[in-house]
Amino acid sequence: MSLVIVGSLAFDTIETPFARRERIIGGSGIYCSLAASFFTWPGVVGVVGRDFPKTAMEFLRKRKIGLAGVSVKAGKTFHWEGRYGEDPNERTTVRTDLNVFADFHPVLPPAYRSADILYLANINPELHAPILEQARGPKLVAMDTIRYWIENKTEALFRELERTDILFANDEEAKLLAGETNLVRAGLRLVRSGPSLVVVKKGEHGVLVFGKGFVFGVPARPCEIVVDPTGAGDSFAGGFLGHLDRVPKITRREFRRATVFGSVIASFAIEDFGIERFKTLSQGEIDDRFREFKNLVSF
Amino acid sequence: MSLVIVGSLAFDTIETPFARRERIIGGSGIYCSLAASFFTWPGVVGVVGRDFPKTAMEFLRKRKIGLAGVSVKAGKTFHWEGRYGEDPNERTTVRTDLNVFADFHPVLPPAYRSADILYLANINPELHAPILEQARGPKLVAMDTIRYWIENKTEALFRELERTDILFANDEEAKLLAGETNLVRAGLRLVRSGPSLVVVKKGEHGVLVFGKGFVFGVPARPCEIVVDPTGAGDSFAGGFLGHLDRVPKITRREFRRATVFGSVIASFAIEDFGIERFKTLSQGEIDDRFREFKNLVSF
Repeated sequence: MSLVIVGSLAFDTIETPFARRERIIGGSGIYCSLAASFFTWPGVVGVVGRDFPKTAMEFLRKRKIGLAGVSVKAGKTFHWEGRYGEDPNERTTVRTDLNVFADFHPVLPPAYRSADILYLANINPELHAPILEQARGPKLVAMDTIRYWIENKTEALFRELERTDILFANDEEAKLLAGETNLVRAGLRLVRSGPSLVVVKKGEHGVLVFGKGFVFGVPARPCEIVVDPTGAGDSFAGGFLGHLDRVPKITRREFRRATVFGSVIASFAIEDFGIERFKTLSQGEIDDRFREFKNLVSF
Repeated sequence: MSLVIVGSLAFDTIETPFARRERIIGGSGIYCSLAASFFTWPGVVGVVGRDFPKTAMEFLRKRKIGLAGVSVKAGKTFHWEGRYGEDPNERTTVRTDLNVFADFHPVLPPAYRSADILYLANINPELHAPILEQARGPKLVAMDTIRYWIENKTEALFRELERTDILFANDEEAKLLAGETNLVRAGLRLVRSGPSLVVVKKGEHGVLVFGKGFVFGVPARPCEIVVDPTGAGDSFAGGFLGHLDRVPKITRREFRRATVFGSVIASFAIEDFGIERFKTLSQGEIDDRFREFKNLVSF
């Protein structure tokens, strides 16, 4: 199999009640592909400005992430600044400078066109069609979205949902998208709107996965300290899809295991700022934490 | 084993966005003992006024709940009125008339003094000592509490925690009691303050159980419709303790199974107003839903 991720490569400036980091490496494409790189060899498609550091590209390459789809444009890299409250679920966007990301028209390199899994990480839903036209019948199309697209590109979003296999959303987005106040009704309604799988991320409360005729739930790993929640959701998707990409056959059981691997990798991502934790993370740590999850929920 | 529950027997007036019920049967002692009655033969200790209907007492008796500890006093039964928002987690207390409950001085009937499990369901923590003095060394003392006691009887509450084996609390109460904004730190801190087990109820997000050196988590059963969330927490405790009361030996594994049985019985309680659902609930339905939980979380 093969996994191609279309998303942002960015600088993030992050402030928590305990520390501040300026212009560290981030973006959905980076978090997701780094997380996936512990399971498979993903390719990433995105755009950076000339200010994007070579050391960051080197690190991605070292993790065996395909970079043929990353174009370097004159101008500055996408920059997001956010602030977290005492409760890490409280996040405020301080500023967003789209920069070169504003004119992002994703081009799949020839080798990526036959990807088995294509992940469109909360990009403008109007960009889905031109991407999918370049692809040659992927087995799975997955997407994430954000409040901004739900509110501003509603029609395009629902059109794209119809040809999406897996939708990732957080609980707030799922309710908003479905127009439901009850999360379970929202999940089931979204399953009827197209995707055969709707994966609802609830942060510290874990994940609920809705499929046609089945529901799966996993609590989050109990974390005493959350250093930086940025990228947790993108890392989750990377672990989830990375696992699906490495199994010989995608079954309901593998969806369940993918959910746990996604939760495992997200639980590492939040242990340090930005992508720092991925620099030291080992396969053994991932396997240990997978077993920890078994122990967490078994009865 | 034997389980004795000290709590309220009450009238509840409940309003949801969809319906209103006046003066239906409720109270922590009733929800808890009804839930427990599907697992064991609990006794309840409480007080009612002369206005408490005989038919309600008859129903409890039919469920084999011991009523020797229920005294009937001149005056009116405790009456609580509450309103739920569109989101069932939003609950407003409209009024509380303590009535005969204001002078509640629990007396354990002789047969209850050797109870193995004693559950003090969010009563004034200053009443714990006189109750425990009447008991002859219970194997397990369990308690629940509410924001009111945490804020107004803080000292008494912490004193009682030291001799409590199992503390039930919702997430908000656990954080408040521990003075922590992170729920996991709160749970671990409470375990250090006395109870060997801290059971944190998170409503639609399930339950986290903290013990000395272990954590257990279970998502809530995904519910599309919540008719009336009143008594869900008390029902959870009843199922939890009822299960512990019936097993020959209380082990870590039984704590885990107790958590699931508690979640199962709570998931039934919210399907109808007040105690209605307990009138039709069967053992087979409980067993089916226990298996459903296995399926919900297995991977």
